[in-house]
Amino acid sequence: MEFNFNELMFFLAPAGALLALLFAALQAKSVFKFSEGTDKMKEIAKSVREGAGAFLKRQYTGVAVFFGIMVVVLGVMSFFGLLNVFTPFAFLTGGLFSGTAGFLGMKIATSANARTAQAASEGLNKGLRVAFASGSVMGFIVVGLGLFDLSVWYFLLKYVFFPIDGVNIVDANAQIAQIAPVMLTFGIGASSMALFARVGGGVFTKAADVGADLVGKVEAGIPEDDPRNPAVIADNVGDNVGDVAGMGADLYESYVISIVATLALAVPAFFSGGEIVGPGPVAAAAVPLVLAAVGVLVSIIGTFFVRTGEDASQKSLLKALRKGSYVASGLVVAAAFPVVWFLLGQEFIGVYFAILSGLVAGVLISTFTEYYTSDTYKPTQKLSESSQMGAGPILINGLSLGMLSTVAPVVIVGISVMVSFFAAGGSLDFSEGLFGGSFAQGLYGVGLSAVAMLSTLGITLASDAYGPVADNAGGIAEMAEMDPKVRERTDALDSLGNTTAATGKGFAIGSAGLAALTLIVAYIERVRDIIAEGIDKAGLTAEAVAAAAQAEMDKIMNLQITNPQVLIGLLIGAVLPFLFSALTMKAVGRAAQSIVVEVRRQFKEIKGLMEGKAKADYKACVDLCTKSAQKEMVPPAVIVVVVPVVVGLLLGVSGVVGMLAGSLAAGFIMAIMMANAGGAWDNAKKYIEAGNLGGKGSDAHKAAVVGDTVGDPFKDTSGPGLNVLIKLLSIVSIVFAGLIIAFSQFMHGFFN
Amino acid sequence: MEFNFNELMFFLAPAGALLALLFAALQAKSVFKFSEGTDKMKEIAKSVREGAGAFLKRQYTGVAVFFGIMVVVLGVMSFFGLLNVFTPFAFLTGGLFSGTAGFLGMKIATSANARTAQAASEGLNKGLRVAFASGSVMGFIVVGLGLFDLSVWYFLLKYVFFPIDGVNIVDANAQIAQIAPVMLTFGIGASSMALFARVGGGVFTKAADVGADLVGKVEAGIPEDDPRNPAVIADNVGDNVGDVAGMGADLYESYVISIVATLALAVPAFFSGGEIVGPGPVAAAAVPLVLAAVGVLVSIIGTFFVRTGEDASQKSLLKALRKGSYVASGLVVAAAFPVVWFLLGQEFIGVYFAILSGLVAGVLISTFTEYYTSDTYKPTQKLSESSQMGAGPILINGLSLGMLSTVAPVVIVGISVMVSFFAAGGSLDFSEGLFGGSFAQGLYGVGLSAVAMLSTLGITLASDAYGPVADNAGGIAEMAEMDPKVRERTDALDSLGNTTAATGKGFAIGSAGLAALTLIVAYIERVRDIIAEGIDKAGLTAEAVAAAAQAEMDKIMNLQITNPQVLIGLLIGAVLPFLFSALTMKAVGRAAQSIVVEVRRQFKEIKGLMEGKAKADYKACVDLCTKSAQKEMVPPAVIVVVVPVVVGLLLGVSGVVGMLAGSLAAGFIMAIMMANAGGAWDNAKKYIEAGNLGGKGSDAHKAAVVGDTVGDPFKDTSGPGLNVLIKLLSIVSIVFAGLIIAFSQFMHGFFN
Repeated sequence: MEFNFNELMFFLAPAGALLALLFAALQAKSVFKFSEGTDKMKEIAKSVREGAGAFLKRQYTGVAVFFGIMVVVLGVMSFFGLLNVFTPFAFLTGGLFSGTAGFLGMKIATSANARTAQAASEGLNKGLRVAFASGSVMGFIVVGLGLFDLSVWYFLLKYVFFPIDGVNIVDANAQIAQIAPVMLTFGIGASSMALFARVGGGVFTKAADVGADLVGKVEAGIPEDDPRNPAVIADNVGDNVGDVAGMGADLYESYVISIVATLALAVPAFFSGGEIVGPGPVAAAAVPLVLAAVGVLVSIIGTFFVRTGEDASQKSLLKALRKGSYVASGLVVAAAFPVVWFLLGQEFIGVYFAILSGLVAGVLISTFTEYYTSDTYKPTQKLSESSQMGAGPILINGLSLGMLSTVAPVVIVGISVMVSFFAAGGSLDFSEGLFGGSFAQGLYGVGLSAVAMLSTLGITLASDAYGPVADNAGGIAEMAEMDPKVRERTDALDSLGNTTAATGKGFAIGSAGLAALTLIVAYIERVRDIIAEGIDKAGLTAEAVAAAAQAEMDKIMNLQITNPQVLIGLLIGAVLPFLFSALTMKAVGRAAQSIVVEVRRQFKEIKGLMEGKAKADYKACVDLCTKSAQKEMVPPAVIVVVVPVVVGLLLGVSGVVGMLAGSLAAGFIMAIMMANAGGAWDNAKKYIEAGNLGGKGSDAHKAAVVGDTVGDPFKDTSGPGLNVLIKLLSIVSIVFAGLIIAFSQFMHGFFN
Repeated sequence: MEFNFNELMFFLAPAGALLALLFAALQAKSVFKFSEGTDKMKEIAKSVREGAGAFLKRQYTGVAVFFGIMVVVLGVMSFFGLLNVFTPFAFLTGGLFSGTAGFLGMKIATSANARTAQAASEGLNKGLRVAFASGSVMGFIVVGLGLFDLSVWYFLLKYVFFPIDGVNIVDANAQIAQIAPVMLTFGIGASSMALFARVGGGVFTKAADVGADLVGKVEAGIPEDDPRNPAVIADNVGDNVGDVAGMGADLYESYVISIVATLALAVPAFFSGGEIVGPGPVAAAAVPLVLAAVGVLVSIIGTFFVRTGEDASQKSLLKALRKGSYVASGLVVAAAFPVVWFLLGQEFIGVYFAILSGLVAGVLISTFTEYYTSDTYKPTQKLSESSQMGAGPILINGLSLGMLSTVAPVVIVGISVMVSFFAAGGSLDFSEGLFGGSFAQGLYGVGLSAVAMLSTLGITLASDAYGPVADNAGGIAEMAEMDPKVRERTDALDSLGNTTAATGKGFAIGSAGLAALTLIVAYIERVRDIIAEGIDKAGLTAEAVAAAAQAEMDKIMNLQITNPQVLIGLLIGAVLPFLFSALTMKAVGRAAQSIVVEVRRQFKEIKGLMEGKAKADYKACVDLCTKSAQKEMVPPAVIVVVVPVVVGLLLGVSGVVGMLAGSLAAGFIMAIMMANAGGAWDNAKKYIEAGNLGGKGSDAHKAAVVGDTVGDPFKDTSGPGLNVLIKLLSIVSIVFAGLIIAFSQFMHGFFN
């Protein structure tokens, strides 16, 4: 086999994947070198680990049933030619890799908690190193496995299933035009996994948290993380299943699908009517993969900048974490230029600015998230103050703070999309048709901006997954009755974790929004491909085939926003995030209620529990949370899979596109609203607990606790679930496109 | 002058208007025949009347400034040919008539409150008659003045400004093609007035309500409507300015603009390339006007069915009110058939089903609203129960109830749009272009469904405006220390008012949604007209002009949902309801806070107030609320006027359409969510106060009060404000279309 430069570039992707996995392994090894501390600490850590393991086991068993059903459905669709034959298998690998990432991430996080507590007893920097190393393992496993999955499939398709001889440029480009659309359907495995992880994990973590607080703190009057509380282990398990496994699966999905969507958009952008445009689709498809590989390398470099002095203040801790991310982003900025230059050439150097705009948008959205949710800024401080007037005012003000905070991200995403569209050569001269030449190039630029935002995911996710580890370490320090100094240090680490969690959420939402945007366009490309496949090409030129496909598309699809199909689809799409949020919030309420009943029962029936003489039955609470999570994740999952198909059958392809746009707009905004309102309520409460406005136990504090109770499912269940919703709807639509088109063509033929 | 049948039909509109106004005058006279009761009652009623008068005076002074500025802006635009010369004048008349309706409605409502209390002391049926008669005055004034405004302008344009000779059919149809688009810009006066009435009234009423409750009920422990509470008069004034004037202006706007939008859509639907299609645009334009006139007549008939026995139960009271509406709706169903048959002919009888679908949708949306918000059904009862777990759970459950309740209305509107589209002859065969023939007919059908929903507005609004009168009557009975039996009766009337208010809100939102939908399409027609006007028609056939206009449109507009302009517009549009809600909720908070301070001051400084020996300074509270309302209505008004223009300049016509669709989808859903969550919280509280779950003073009640506090601005300020927002954005866009197009054409010429 011979290779040309562009094709060689693709090998950077598996290289980056292996590098990421190797680094994750090294980091894991470094974590395991630390001691888990005293026997009591080991015992507690073991309970948490076992609880998390039990949750994952049950979760994966439940998910396996869903995957089994879906493989059959997808298999049948493949059999009838409504789907390519690779999708069922890719569905499995996507789910498998995402699940593995979640499993390993939980494993390391639940192994690092006691070690962080022990290390913190020796020094703050040491504690930070352990917790952050554990976060890094999660970050790099997600990136490594994601990139690995994509690379393996890419090379399988290229060299095994669609092989070509020699290095003929036109053939290579025609080849990628075959490969890219196939890969587009591959996101569904990772997306399904993300939904279950987000909803299941979100229900678990908040049921445990709210349940533990309602009975423990409020009724029994014992402090947080008190070992007498039967729900305390479940609460610590929840931190892991929600913030580690859930967040990881969510970003795994964004990462994978923004890359495949950009890959798919490279084809219409640089390959038109059988002719190569500019550098051609092979070079253009290489860009996101190379960018991802570069991102791995610079993220690893970034991690070495995360260190602090022994007696660091909280501010310098934050600075240390930030430094790592900034170094990584800076290096991407520097490295992306030659990547674009060598792959796309001087004429398309504008694409570089699309990449820049994605990076900048990510930083800006995170900054605004921090502004609205951190108690070092006005909004949350003012929210805190309104608690003095009672629960009503802090709730109204929290809701309006959340609503207000949606404006900036929308404007940022809007500007970023416009900049990347035009920078990548997009033009609004529609004379060539909407997907002719430069318009598609602009959309390719938008896709790249999403990839760019996610390129440093390794280190971003590390800062994020570090939080729950520090949180758990604090819990263990409390339960194992360690020196109060240790708890102080873990609190410093934890408090930082709240800030990185907030910015991480902004980042997760921003990237989900851009990824979903790219997917809508990719969906339409997918429709075009399916239609083109069905055309009898005998004796037709490539141009004639394209024209015939366009004519066929015009029969069944009209994307004008005034088409009633699009408008109604839009309305239905916009209502889905509301439905989804309602279901998940109610789910948390029900699950928390069952925990309340169980904790009350244990307090009553287990003699000597309150005196610390008897041991609580932690496992019962973990089991309850696990069961609730499994049960409650079914209805949202059914909605996400069924609604796009039903809308497609009733309103056709145009209705589906309307639905995707509507759910993107409403879901993106609702997700930000819920995350920021929840974060602000949480921090407003913490601000009072820090001694402001009367401190703990004051009326203001009681009002703030009500705000926090409402905010919990907002920020940790419904809000994050919406990230997945908006992406998964698109992915499901893409996978079922063949079915919908066949039905539309049948109906069109039937009526005409 | 000679007339043909179709043209004669138009005279039914002014006839209907005069009939409505005459009936309103008779009803008003019947109200004034009743006694205002004792001197104390008269005095209280006078205070409320004066407060309402003071509010309106200041409100209208503030609005006059805005109107002054707008007239100058519109005048300048007319001067430069960016707007027809009639708009500034129509803007004034629209505002004037809407303002007059508000003024008269308030006048009668504040004159009927004491009379209702007095009548209720004589019997329940008598009380109902007075309150309902007062509501009817409001209902029929709104309908009468709205229809009058439209008719006057129509005849002015037809016979004075665009006169034609004789009864040549083609000329008459060409004439209406000139008149209809001109009238489309006329909604802006009514829309601006509606915004101020909704936001100003909404802030006033909730500031007074929340402020009175926070200090009076919670701090001082005195009952609701206690004369010792200095904010009690402001609270009663608030019922009128919010629920009478605000609701009236909102529905006035929906009524007027759904008629003009349908009028405007009649032209492209039945007049193509200078040729008449089917019955032609004159006949098609007559339909909405005749339907409105028929609606007046049947609504009057309906009012005679609203009566009950002397010792009626609450159930039979509701039945009495419902009967009136059902009779009216039934008569429209019967009368619409011959209207369509004679005006459009057998071929277009399908339009009749578009009318039916609008009527059915209105009833269904109201039914679902009642289901979700009335404590006779499960959802609110369950919500009530969750209050036993504390404020957090009732808030979470109320929010999810609100979110869940948005699904049914979206599905209903979706089905209704599809049914009316296809029934009116719409087809999704896009081969003729999006606005060719049957597609436009379908959209005309959608417009008619909105007109149909609003056709019985006279009696619907009567049932709705009756509520605050009964509410006020209860307050007066309490303050004037009347026999507890009277209070019981007014409570029965008031409780009924809450149910009709809830269904009225569903109706207001549903019609606003359909009206906004119609306006989006009308906006695009407006763009086409403006572009066609600018084309040099010398030597061109009508068809050639249309083709040239289309070519010019294609240069500056592409409505495909994947166009980044549309997508970003969509996102911006979807964020506006969130921004608007945040601003209005914060406004209520600030205003209520100022009332709290003032009431506290009076309790402290006025000696003997608590003992009932000294009189509170009611006027100070009314003044404060008035001032707050004036100040707080400015930012939302600025947003609504500025954003469409800025979006237009930055993202062009396509961006504007995207914005309108986004704000419609998100705003419609948010409005339902907020109205229903608020209504359910209110009734959950009342359910407990009725003695369930521990009754007044229990912990559950305290939690329910928190829910109600959050729900107050939801249901009475932000939610209803969104109805106006989604319509006004379209209207502003339509009015400023000329400016945006000129700018787009300039930029397009500049870059190409």
